Amino acid sequence: MKAVHIIGLLAAAAGTVLGLVGAVQAFDNRGPVAPIYGVRLPEGYRDWPLVAPAQEAAPLDELRVVVGNPKAMRAYRGKVQPFPDGTVLVKLAWKHEPSPDFAPASVPGAATTVQVMVKDFRRYAATGGWGYGRFIDGRPVDEAQHRTCHACHASRVKQRDYVFTRYAP
Amino acid sequence: MKAVHIIGLLAAAAGTVLGLVGAVQAFDNRGPVAPIYGVRLPEGYRDWPLVAPAQEAAPLDELRVVVGNPKAMRAYRGKVQPFPDGTVLVKLAWKHEPSPDFAPASVPGAATTVQVMVKDFRRYAATGGWGYGRFIDGRPVDEAQHRTCHACHASRVKQRDYVFTRYAP
Repeated sequence: MKAVHIIGLLAAAAGTVLGLVGAVQAFDNRGPVAPIYGVRLPEGYRDWPLVAPAQEAAPLDELRVVVGNPKAMRAYRGKVQPFPDGTVLVKLAWKHEPSPDFAPASVPGAATTVQVMVKDFRRYAATGGWGYGRFIDGRPVDEAQHRTCHACHASRVKQRDYVFTRYAP
Repeated sequence: MKAVHIIGLLAAAAGTVLGLVGAVQAFDNRGPVAPIYGVRLPEGYRDWPLVAPAQEAAPLDELRVVVGNPKAMRAYRGKVQPFPDGTVLVKLAWKHEPSPDFAPASVPGAATTVQVMVKDFRRYAATGGWGYGRFIDGRPVDEAQHRTCHACHASRVKQRDYVFTRYAP
């Protein structure tokens, strides 16, 4: 019984250590970091200008807005592609729900994901120059989800420098 | 025949003069001015931060985004109501259309209206402190349309200082 206890304790301790290592890997001093790409939620993005809104039908049922940092906005407005190094795009998303105030309108409900694209030609050479991050409640989702980002962008919008969202006039 | 010509020319000239007076009334040196309220499209609003997106079902079929000036954003984030003097909210709207790149998504099509709310307690005392402007292609719509703005806001969201749009978390 004692041996079993000790093995159990060792296993628990090892699990804790591994868990801590995992946690340490997913953070640095500027906040949580997405797997694979090391992308972070950029500071101040909630004040960035609008690129465009979008709506997602079922099963997501979301309202979304893409915002861009100054490099992104200059590139969009100047129709510059590929986007330059330092471009950052952030997509905010919420469940859409009926407006309680005006029947034909849908408005944001609970926040769902925040998704980030960062342009760095060298660092992300293997994925068209883009690093991707997907966050829920400020924390990155798992590696498996991050593996899906670039494949989808590459299959659908490679000809627009892998960026789905167009500037809303 | 000559008399008819002269009357025609006089009528045309009068029409031109009236047209010019109308045009002069609808503009000042900072751009076109909405009827009733004298509200303008604020400079630089396309770079303002996001308050929230919305979607409008048929018959409008629009995607919309409300952005706010710094006073608006501070009031939203601090949950301050009534909004202070100098608050400006702008709603941009586009027809929504299916994304050519991703079937479940709808994205902005043609721009439709840009709508403005300006807070000035004294100037707009008769309408809850708000002045309204609705613009299409940078030009204000007619007075009849502007007469409908406040009545609708007052009947539905008076308890939220006449503002439909809530801050998207």
